[in-house]
Amino acid sequence: VTEAPDAVPQVRGRRPTRGEPVVDRALSLLAAFDAAHPYLTLSALSRRSGIPASSALRLAGRLLEWGALEREPDGRFSIGLRLWEVASLTPRGHGLRQVALPFMGDLEEVTRQHVLLAVREGEQALLVERLSSHGAVAALYRPGGRMPLHSTGVGLVLLAFAEAGVQERVLAQPLIHQPEQVPVSAATLRRTLAGIRRDGLATFHRGAPGPIVSVAAPVHDAQGTVVAALSVVVPAEDAEPRLLGPAVRTAARGISRGLGARRPPGTS
Amino acid sequence: VTEAPDAVPQVRGRRPTRGEPVVDRALSLLAAFDAAHPYLTLSALSRRSGIPASSALRLAGRLLEWGALEREPDGRFSIGLRLWEVASLTPRGHGLRQVALPFMGDLEEVTRQHVLLAVREGEQALLVERLSSHGAVAALYRPGGRMPLHSTGVGLVLLAFAEAGVQERVLAQPLIHQPEQVPVSAATLRRTLAGIRRDGLATFHRGAPGPIVSVAAPVHDAQGTVVAALSVVVPAEDAEPRLLGPAVRTAARGISRGLGARRPPGTS
Repeated sequence: VTEAPDAVPQVRGRRPTRGEPVVDRALSLLAAFDAAHPYLTLSALSRRSGIPASSALRLAGRLLEWGALEREPDGRFSIGLRLWEVASLTPRGHGLRQVALPFMGDLEEVTRQHVLLAVREGEQALLVERLSSHGAVAALYRPGGRMPLHSTGVGLVLLAFAEAGVQERVLAQPLIHQPEQVPVSAATLRRTLAGIRRDGLATFHRGAPGPIVSVAAPVHDAQGTVVAALSVVVPAEDAEPRLLGPAVRTAARGISRGLGARRPPGTS
Repeated sequence: VTEAPDAVPQVRGRRPTRGEPVVDRALSLLAAFDAAHPYLTLSALSRRSGIPASSALRLAGRLLEWGALEREPDGRFSIGLRLWEVASLTPRGHGLRQVALPFMGDLEEVTRQHVLLAVREGEQALLVERLSSHGAVAALYRPGGRMPLHSTGVGLVLLAFAEAGVQERVLAQPLIHQPEQVPVSAATLRRTLAGIRRDGLATFHRGAPGPIVSVAAPVHDAQGTVVAALSVVVPAEDAEPRLLGPAVRTAARGISRGLGARRPPGTS
């Protein structure tokens, strides 16, 4: 591709013109699905999207035709494989995964538990990939799902290296460790984040559903920006965070190098 | 969810009403991206979707707002992580992957090459997942990408167990083995498919870019339908298909059981 990129015209804040609300309604239909509701009847789709059933059916028809939705023999809708095919082109999901997967495989072979790869999306982490061995401890999060920044290993890394505005917005909220419901003070979290920036490593302990330790490290891109976080999650009883740290940092460096990073900044 | 599924009303073949073509245009914008073009300028987006630049910019604005598209600092568009988040809910992609990944990991550890999981989408195969070891042979296909049914191991399995109408449509086309450009007769392919149905296993040899062997087996769902195919792809020089077959079939059965299948039909 040799053509010059366009200048960036203003696209936000325009008055919507005729026809555009239809696009928003179509997107609302897609957003009605979630991990707990991968199949929806027409009435559930209508209720969850706030779109009257007759409009929902008409719009769903266009989405079915294209393959953004699929329909079961019993009439329930689900997200279509064609949408996943197009969506898999997202550079922050798929491109990152492809670089990361062999390194994640190495870590999983060594630890025999969970290996996680996450990116920041606003004030949450989004789990891009999880490799889990047979018999690994119970996992709280699924790929494609959201995770809190302040109470996961990968989330703490992403928060520690996020721009100041994001950190301040997160620190301004009442922070509760999930799922134990323990409050965290902003001062404690600030100290934790400073430690993560200093060490290039986060160690996070979670008590429930089973006691686990997550050890997480940052992944850098060619510009030195932290674009993702990698972690291993192991049962607390077997965990030797001092031994896991170098393994996670080594794999995270391998991924960073695959993304074009030279030497990750801030680590020796 | 306790509510009864709705009856299936007719949604195809309706006359489009006002506003719906906008949804089609928005979907055309998404379809303008492919693996060779994960980033598009506004002018490329307009040209590849056939939508005038002014409309394309207005529609892209709605998609950006929602997160279906993202924009680089230089103004180029890409598919957004939010779209991937929703699309990852597709039962045929994500649900299947989650069941399959630990078994794929086992196979990859044993073979140290590529392990592929594919589903049929019309008259092509769609690669849902690929695990690849460091140093594995050159791969032709990427996750989220299409593969020909008649010249890949997983494709042959999916074709062998597809409904008759699909087989006849594929067999009626001029069939060329990719990437060597060798023609295949329909009679030969019919015999190959019969053998795959008999053995529950496909062995496919490819000469280029490097000589490889793919050994593939079907994955069944709770209804006994073949919903996916699993394969290992190894360099032809090291391959012992007779030893790989049982490993692939064992892993495919593990995935089938995870999907609710009792005993895969047609295998002893």
